[in-house]
Amino acid sequence: MKIAIMGYGTVGSGVYEVLVTNAAGIATRAGEAITVERILDLREFPDHPEAHKFTKNVDDIINDKEIGLVVETMGGTEPAFTFACRAMKSGKSYVTSNKELVAAKGPELMALAEENGVSFLFEASVGGGIPIIMPLKECLAGNEISEIMGILNGTTNYILTQMFSCGASFADALAEAQKKGYAEANPDADVLGYDTCRKIAILTSLACGKHVDFSRIPTEGITGIDEIDVAFAESLRSSVKLVGYSSVKDGKAYCRVAPMVIPHDHPLYSVEDVFNAILVTGNAIGDCMFYGRGAGKLPTASAVVSDVIAATTGKISIPPTWKRTDEDVFADVSSSASRRMIRVSSDAAEDVKALFTCISSATTPKAPNEIAFTIDAVSEADFAEKAAKLGDKLIKSIYLA
Amino acid sequence: MKIAIMGYGTVGSGVYEVLVTNAAGIATRAGEAITVERILDLREFPDHPEAHKFTKNVDDIINDKEIGLVVETMGGTEPAFTFACRAMKSGKSYVTSNKELVAAKGPELMALAEENGVSFLFEASVGGGIPIIMPLKECLAGNEISEIMGILNGTTNYILTQMFSCGASFADALAEAQKKGYAEANPDADVLGYDTCRKIAILTSLACGKHVDFSRIPTEGITGIDEIDVAFAESLRSSVKLVGYSSVKDGKAYCRVAPMVIPHDHPLYSVEDVFNAILVTGNAIGDCMFYGRGAGKLPTASAVVSDVIAATTGKISIPPTWKRTDEDVFADVSSSASRRMIRVSSDAAEDVKALFTCISSATTPKAPNEIAFTIDAVSEADFAEKAAKLGDKLIKSIYLA
Repeated sequence: MKIAIMGYGTVGSGVYEVLVTNAAGIATRAGEAITVERILDLREFPDHPEAHKFTKNVDDIINDKEIGLVVETMGGTEPAFTFACRAMKSGKSYVTSNKELVAAKGPELMALAEENGVSFLFEASVGGGIPIIMPLKECLAGNEISEIMGILNGTTNYILTQMFSCGASFADALAEAQKKGYAEANPDADVLGYDTCRKIAILTSLACGKHVDFSRIPTEGITGIDEIDVAFAESLRSSVKLVGYSSVKDGKAYCRVAPMVIPHDHPLYSVEDVFNAILVTGNAIGDCMFYGRGAGKLPTASAVVSDVIAATTGKISIPPTWKRTDEDVFADVSSSASRRMIRVSSDAAEDVKALFTCISSATTPKAPNEIAFTIDAVSEADFAEKAAKLGDKLIKSIYLA
Repeated sequence: MKIAIMGYGTVGSGVYEVLVTNAAGIATRAGEAITVERILDLREFPDHPEAHKFTKNVDDIINDKEIGLVVETMGGTEPAFTFACRAMKSGKSYVTSNKELVAAKGPELMALAEENGVSFLFEASVGGGIPIIMPLKECLAGNEISEIMGILNGTTNYILTQMFSCGASFADALAEAQKKGYAEANPDADVLGYDTCRKIAILTSLACGKHVDFSRIPTEGITGIDEIDVAFAESLRSSVKLVGYSSVKDGKAYCRVAPMVIPHDHPLYSVEDVFNAILVTGNAIGDCMFYGRGAGKLPTASAVVSDVIAATTGKISIPPTWKRTDEDVFADVSSSASRRMIRVSSDAAEDVKALFTCISSATTPKAPNEIAFTIDAVSEADFAEKAAKLGDKLIKSIYLA
């Protein structure tokens, strides 16, 4: 199998490295050798051992009839979408780590793959190296999936871990993450939750077999989490994680991206630093969790290469996993119920107890005029109404796992 | 797709239940309805809604040309092996939860499946509902797997969790497990590690592509774990788990089943009660972990049904994942290095420090004349030699993660 890599950044070069390093084992498991024939990148790589394989012209790949599969690790919807369409129409399978592409154009690309008898695979688009797309699609296919909770972004999880373990402020933890190369110079896609949003949209689409439009998912990042939230969570033996959440019932999905308070006995509690984890609940399996490195050169390349091997061994022409539908896939948000941690002014304690079913409460020397309560599940509509009664006394609300 | 179920115990009846309950979704994902045509069991089920489908004669299934797939949940090598051979030779795919069968006859059955152009799938044989066989085989196919650590038996994990959380003795915790239906009347297969042994043999065979003979894996259960071990482990902020362990290097495997002391910051530490988890290390992905219910009616059925769907959607005639080889797959045990927790008499502290690189030490009021050390990795040969020098002063040694 001769392949091309489009985009020779961190992940693309990792794919090359894994294919070279593990060549013998990969050839055994794929049933044939997998060799990189061309590499597309606008930059120059004169010192690369196979510098002659680089090209800046995508036609060199599309028109090469020897190339049976294209790996795309460029990111972004365009030109990836155009390239994907051209590659698959030319009879080449398409393997991508590009979550923007899958979240925006998944149904069209899966249909195109079926039409052309090729594979369109995207294990690396969610959870980096963690096997989650194939397990969710195939290994849990006997289940109706009712809930997905994912720590899906390593950058924000690193920042939150620093805020908890070192008492760092958000700004300091972000700066540290940037210094270590975990966060980009413009960290918005990570810290504002946009990255997690696309990933939970993909997982939810898989779970319900219908396209979930990421742009309609309420998305809140971690920029609003402060040291007082951290202190209250700690005194409740809990942590705070950015969670891509969805619950699915009767084919309708309720999705959100938001920080969540995670109690110490919850499986996601001990997922720290740049690790990711996805907790999936199905009606037969119950809870199961997938944990590992959600980003990085070689872990993400691991997922890409597994897709390359799967496409090579002949899992071609798979029917689309999900489709766009005319009916609205989103459930009525107002009726969905969630537990919460709320911070209120100290004089509101009695009001809170009258309005909500309280689970526990906490105080912290960092905010002597406040008290935090964990409260049992109430619907969004109910919460809004009761929150209005508390008025200014309600300082903040964070979802609770 | 018309199928038969052979063995209508806990798992077999769970498979029926999942196929009925989730019929609509399963039909969508499999591309066609999956219906149970015959059920083989020696017992009577007169009150079953489809009592007419039961038979005591396997020929009714083998000779039924309409049946394209057989689910076997009987357990044991025979008659399952004979039935599997007959089913596949008759052109039927074979899906099993039977770890004894896969560990003993995997290579023969995979070869027979290939010859006959059918599927032989066994996701449910390890880790109950947890997706691990397909993820290891396909999603990590780009990796060289270097290490597998699995909590693979729910019964022993429940017993150990009780010993830690309630201070129960092994005997009391076993009795409690039997009362709750987690342990069988004859608990040997679980508590002596035989069940874990077959499961780690299957996972290691997958990881190295060669058949690992379970009968040659050193296997120690949890019957030797006492309240003093628990007390020492607790004062070291650790737990004790029964771990199926293998490391693979240059195609050779070092395997064992033994209790291990698991420190509090290790991903396996918080796996409690009847949950299972498998930690896999690959040279691209790093560490990843799969967690969920390792046994039970519906979780195990979840894995069986996913295989039924995979076979139905056409993943037939897969080349054998591993084969028997003439070369010895086992590495020289004496050179493999492991960390340990050792219990010694108090007067041996200086000897221990002179012989080993100590990491930490602990005492417990439960054994005032003892001290426990955690020691850095030494080879089996080295450890045996140094243990001999300690003589009677060495009371016990337990592997340390």
